[in-house]
Amino acid sequence: MNEDKEVQLDDTDRKIIDLLIKDGRMSYADIGKELDLSRVAVRTRINTLIETGVIEQFTCIVDSEKVGRKVSAFFNVDCEPNSLVEVAENLANNPFVASCYQMTGPSTLHTHVLADNFNQLESFINNELYALKGITRVDSQILLRRFKSRTGFKL
Amino acid sequence: MNEDKEVQLDDTDRKIIDLLIKDGRMSYADIGKELDLSRVAVRTRINTLIETGVIEQFTCIVDSEKVGRKVSAFFNVDCEPNSLVEVAENLANNPFVASCYQMTGPSTLHTHVLADNFNQLESFINNELYALKGITRVDSQILLRRFKSRTGFKL
Amino acid sequence: MNEDKEVQLDDTDRKIIDLLIKDGRMSYADIGKELDLSRVAVRTRINTLIETGVIEQFTCIVDSEKVGRKVSAFFNVDCEPNSLVEVAENLANNPFVASCYQMTGPSTLHTHVLADNFNQLESFINNELYALKGITRVDSQILLRRFKSRTGFKL
Amino acid sequence: MNEDKEVQLDDTDRKIIDLLIKDGRMSYADIGKELDLSRVAVRTRINTLIETGVIEQFTCIVDSEKVGRKVSAFFNVDCEPNSLVEVAENLANNPFVASCYQMTGPSTLHTHVLADNFNQLESFINNELYALKGITRVDSQILLRRFKSRTGFKL
Amino acid sequence: MNEDKEVQLDDTDRKIIDLLIKDGRMSYADIGKELDLSRVAVRTRINTLIETGVIEQFTCIVDSEKVGRKVSAFFNVDCEPNSLVEVAENLANNPFVASCYQMTGPSTLHTHVLADNFNQLESFINNELYALKGITRVDSQILLRRFKSRTGFKL
Amino acid sequence: MNEDKEVQLDDTDRKIIDLLIKDGRMSYADIGKELDLSRVAVRTRINTLIETGVIEQFTCIVDSEKVGRKVSAFFNVDCEPNSLVEVAENLANNPFVASCYQMTGPSTLHTHVLADNFNQLESFINNELYALKGITRVDSQILLRRFKSRTGFKL
Amino acid sequence: MNEDKEVQLDDTDRKIIDLLIKDGRMSYADIGKELDLSRVAVRTRINTLIETGVIEQFTCIVDSEKVGRKVSAFFNVDCEPNSLVEVAENLANNPFVASCYQMTGPSTLHTHVLADNFNQLESFINNELYALKGITRVDSQILLRRFKSRTGFKL
Amino acid sequence: MNEDKEVQLDDTDRKIIDLLIKDGRMSYADIGKELDLSRVAVRTRINTLIETGVIEQFTCIVDSEKVGRKVSAFFNVDCEPNSLVEVAENLANNPFVASCYQMTGPSTLHTHVLADNFNQLESFINNELYALKGITRVDSQILLRRFKSRTGFKL
Repeated sequence: MNEDKEVQLDDTDRKIIDLLIKDGRMSYADIGKELDLSRVAVRTRINTLIETGVIEQFTCIVDSEKVGRKVSAFFNVDCEPNSLVEVAENLANNPFVASCYQMTGPSTLHTHVLADNFNQLESFINNELYALKGITRVDSQILLRRFKSRTGFKL
Repeated sequence: MNEDKEVQLDDTDRKIIDLLIKDGRMSYADIGKELDLSRVAVRTRINTLIETGVIEQFTCIVDSEKVGRKVSAFFNVDCEPNSLVEVAENLANNPFVASCYQMTGPSTLHTHVLADNFNQLESFINNELYALKGITRVDSQILLRRFKSRTGFKL
Repeated sequence: MNEDKEVQLDDTDRKIIDLLIKDGRMSYADIGKELDLSRVAVRTRINTLIETGVIEQFTCIVDSEKVGRKVSAFFNVDCEPNSLVEVAENLANNPFVASCYQMTGPSTLHTHVLADNFNQLESFINNELYALKGITRVDSQILLRRFKSRTGFKL
Repeated sequence: MNEDKEVQLDDTDRKIIDLLIKDGRMSYADIGKELDLSRVAVRTRINTLIETGVIEQFTCIVDSEKVGRKVSAFFNVDCEPNSLVEVAENLANNPFVASCYQMTGPSTLHTHVLADNFNQLESFINNELYALKGITRVDSQILLRRFKSRTGFKL
Repeated sequence: MNEDKEVQLDDTDRKIIDLLIKDGRMSYADIGKELDLSRVAVRTRINTLIETGVIEQFTCIVDSEKVGRKVSAFFNVDCEPNSLVEVAENLANNPFVASCYQMTGPSTLHTHVLADNFNQLESFINNELYALKGITRVDSQILLRRFKSRTGFKL
Repeated sequence: MNEDKEVQLDDTDRKIIDLLIKDGRMSYADIGKELDLSRVAVRTRINTLIETGVIEQFTCIVDSEKVGRKVSAFFNVDCEPNSLVEVAENLANNPFVASCYQMTGPSTLHTHVLADNFNQLESFINNELYALKGITRVDSQILLRRFKSRTGFKL
Repeated sequence: MNEDKEVQLDDTDRKIIDLLIKDGRMSYADIGKELDLSRVAVRTRINTLIETGVIEQFTCIVDSEKVGRKVSAFFNVDCEPNSLVEVAENLANNPFVASCYQMTGPSTLHTHVLADNFNQLESFINNELYALKGITRVDSQILLRRFKSRTGFKL
Repeated sequence: MNEDKEVQLDDTDRKIIDLLIKDGRMSYADIGKELDLSRVAVRTRINTLIETGVIEQFTCIVDSEKVGRKVSAFFNVDCEPNSLVEVAENLANNPFVASCYQMTGPSTLHTHVLADNFNQLESFINNELYALKGITRVDSQILLRRFKSRTGFKL
């Protein structure tokens, strides 16, 4: 919570953001029509949102199962406290790891992993994760069902 | 893990997807230049990726702190087993809830919440979350540090 | 531990048992050759082992993945103590449940489940398991790797 | 979950498998009578089931108490993550250990042990199990009651 | 964390606060001498600190053992989530309860209790605490040793 | 619980203590008026209470948020048992640490920390707390709501 | 901890107590010889120790396995807090229960049970213990090995 | 559970044992009167009970608070598995330790400690218990209330 990070946005900015979260490729013209703005005004505002860091990135959401990544797993990685940052940086560099967070609560790393299948997951666990120094215990869980997965924000 | 969901993709499809994950607004022309394809060929392939559900959505990633959502919290919501689905659907409809998953492991809902500040979070917990029927215990954690947050895939 | 249940076996009985655990269809003649006994003597001994209940059943071990049961899951089912037996009997009647034990330790049922895929597992959990009365919490785990799986004995 | 392992079976194959799970020594002739097949057709199908690995083994189930193994115990063996595979292989080689599995959930080995009596179990724990390197914590439980123990499949 | 609550203080204010935390009865004159200020200037500043709520209260710290309150106990009170606020208000009204907080982490009330002796503590637990509705589990701990107990701030 | 520590107090002593807990700067004269005592008698009694250690200190309670310390956090610091006292003394010397207690229950240090904001808290955790030798696990919680915070006594 | 319960004992009293803990049937004469006291002096002192309640009872320690009680089990019985005393009184009246204590820590009853064999223990658990109202969870453990078992004092 | 340890007792033996558990100093004559036996017959039987090890010891139960041991504490001592026996033997030699058991469940030593007061208990914990090698975690609890404490049998 960094108090001075907030950027002042007006209602139009917020409406543009909402439209782009829903469709990141929406054209300036279509946004302008929707909000009664000129194409140029929309472009200027979007550029400002990008420059001030409000919009971090345009991206697309891929159905991981359709590209063959069929197992979505979540790991609580318990670390020796003085190895936590090093373990986290190792995990962040691993291509199977989609996200890695430090939270309050136990001295654990919240880690999300995508694998093609169970054999690959087992190999990731035994050969890559468990091989890291400073890990004391790992708890793994497999995704059963998504009830909500809102786009536009990172955890 | 639905075995028949996988879509056959060639290398060019995969390269297009990678480019769009990095920049969801990249133009057909620029993608074509990068991959030595015509603008039309790119458009055709992207349309196919959308129609087959490989690309679920184009979106943008917003810096939640810059738009005033300063507290990112994670909840493990323990439910009476026979209320779990109902609780999950209630949480999915709550505007503070960004995501809600059922995992293997304990009969718990993995829930991510974004709030403007601690007062709002405390109010969400005591007035909205704890008011739901069928919840037996809640464990909440606050985000301290992001080590990796890969775009392009949902948990 | 029922002290009076033990049956007195001699060395030849134990050797016959070992051979039958390794190959349940081994013929009386082949067992006789191996142990220097007549075919009739082998048959008589095996019949006695069956009659005294030492050998409970001849069976075969099927590779569950090859017959389409691809997910092997283990559940710790926490029960309200006064519902434990009733829950156990319900689970024992469920075709997905392969085994169900009460152990010392927590008031939990050790339950093994085989499902064709994750969708079926999720449906079993949410529609059948969580619908049982008297269940307070469930912990589920998916088999990653078998290091040893000795035949011939139940847990 | 290895997607390409599944073998195509027809109804007759499945009926043969069910009969053999119930009685692993059932003769080709009796199976043929039951299913209206020739003795040779039954033998051919069973041989194919064995060659394709669908049937892994014929075996018999022994009443462990009647042969003097009166204590059935279950261990959760917590390992230092980078010693888990080595510990598992050590346990797999131990004659008291009937089965040893790695599951999702905590970095623990699911281990089943059969002992003749409590003195032997105590000796196994203190002299063999606790002597292994890389074990951080052990949780042991004793079987109180079997509610279901289906034959034909391994955990 | 209420962002707009902060009051602007200069160095002199902070020095006055530090002196008053160390000795809450220090006279205006003595503070003035220490900081090279007039008695009136000190009084004005202190009055402002009180009016703006920076200083909530002057108080004294009593050695609880010397006044006969010999047992300092800490309770984690687990509540049914929808009873947590009601339980907290009940505890806050109980004269044995010195403090009661809601924290992130589990849906538990952090509660500090002072009792004259163990009989009184046991009576408080069994007759007052356990009699409250909506409590599912209580964990109690007794103070063994104080390593630091800084005055001037509440938890 | 040191049995010989208790000091004999009469009713008037207890009333003076109660008044001073409520207002630590109350003048001898005002206390005297309230309790029908001379100014000198009050001063004598208070001096005795200080000399016998009943009153440990006069202090003031500062609103930590108003002086910019906006995050109140609580840590359970698990230690290797033979490092607990050393860790506790290190924590006691850390300016972010407001209190540090050893309790019955797990071999854990009950530690209260005040920080200006989350960045500072994260830095304290990763750079100062996790750097201490002999710490095996840390559990952190953030204050959500104060239901009671009685002055006059330390935990 | 009841401060006024302590009885003043001299060295001779303590020596008599030590002798009687070691051999509860030691005669007045033998104690007198050992401590250089008359038979009458010993009897008078022992009577005083009984009258003041220092010695609660003379008893003998029976080897539970030799009288057929072969399973020594320990239970942590978790109760709904407002049922704890009632559950405890029920357990205290059960002939299988040897001891039942309330401790600090979780709202659990520390209960020791002696049974003739595992069948009886299983029957006690399922038919008597789990039938009690107000029990939420039970954890049971079986004695593996006694390292020390000092006579003369209750837990 | 050592199956061959049991000694055959008749009803009269069992009645004598019951009388001696209730009053370990009951004279042969009084026992004889109660059971309609001669003094000599009683003595012979008791001697046999001692020689066969059925009666391990005559002792007395002392009220620990009345001899100044006011704090009865219970410890779960978690050990590195390969140090458990050594830790147990160290604890068994410590005069504060009244009993020490290894149970099924976690690799923990069940330990009962009697101390004169909290200062002594804190000193035992920090200077003696935590100084032992091979201890990873300790959980301590203080006795609040005895509901049942049957004499005659050890845990």
